[in-house]
Amino acid sequence: MFTPIAIGYARTPYKESSQIPKGLGARHDAEGILDIHPEFAPGLLDIEGFSHLFVLWCFHRSAGFDLIGRPPIETKQHGVFATRSPRRPNPIGLTVVELFRHDGGALHVRGVDMLDGTPILDLKPYMSSIPMESLRRGWLTEAELRRDGTVSTP
Amino acid sequence: MFTPIAIGYARTPYKESSQIPKGLGARHDAEGILDIHPEFAPGLLDIEGFSHLFVLWCFHRSAGFDLIGRPPIETKQHGVFATRSPRRPNPIGLTVVELFRHDGGALHVRGVDMLDGTPILDLKPYMSSIPMESLRRGWLTEAELRRDGTVSTP
Repeated sequence: MFTPIAIGYARTPYKESSQIPKGLGARHDAEGILDIHPEFAPGLLDIEGFSHLFVLWCFHRSAGFDLIGRPPIETKQHGVFATRSPRRPNPIGLTVVELFRHDGGALHVRGVDMLDGTPILDLKPYMSSIPMESLRRGWLTEAELRRDGTVSTP
Repeated sequence: MFTPIAIGYARTPYKESSQIPKGLGARHDAEGILDIHPEFAPGLLDIEGFSHLFVLWCFHRSAGFDLIGRPPIETKQHGVFATRSPRRPNPIGLTVVELFRHDGGALHVRGVDMLDGTPILDLKPYMSSIPMESLRRGWLTEAELRRDGTVSTP
């Protein structure tokens, strides 16, 4: 299909995956920098107009995949496509970040949840949202209910 | 990094890219089927609990990239990472779809905007939304204003 290339690398506070907040109610407000290679930086023109971005990146320390697995802080197993597990057939991660500064090839963002040094594959503008009241969230809602008897309002 | 593999293919009403609704106010309620290969279908376990999914797919008819380009129904040029252009350094598409039926390896969804036969790379549960009132949408808002003097409320 295509050969993935890194358009840049993420600088984040997380040197090990154990440091990344996971599971229900995990806060994702860590700041980081998306360092885009000079050869690709012209592609950032006007990106600062968007408050939020999709970041597509590579789980570069993950090898192989499991079709069924148990997410952190969950008691049951689910299919990999119903979870955010790193052990996926294509090890691509997706994170929504808030962009607060664009400085040349550096995007200063909030909400990183990937390891420091993670290769970035793509950036896309976050243009619209599904209203929260329209979402069903399957096992996630059930796990919240099992945990504390209430469903969070994210 | 990794070698992309198709976990399945999208069946959509669009045989040519000219048929896909584009630009401001384009409706994306077309129905389609995400046909997941039998070998990967076990990874769909419990996916029907989620009303919406992220679909990552390959722009398989796109070759090469442009760092700067003009989106459809826009008068100005923008960086590729501020647009949804298919001509990207990594030709990965991202679409949010509504899942309304899971039947074995077939996911019946609403909101497809890719060509019929598009290779699917990954599926992820859509777990939360950025509130629309928190979004800034850069050139998209400006283009809407230029078009009709009002900003749509998606």
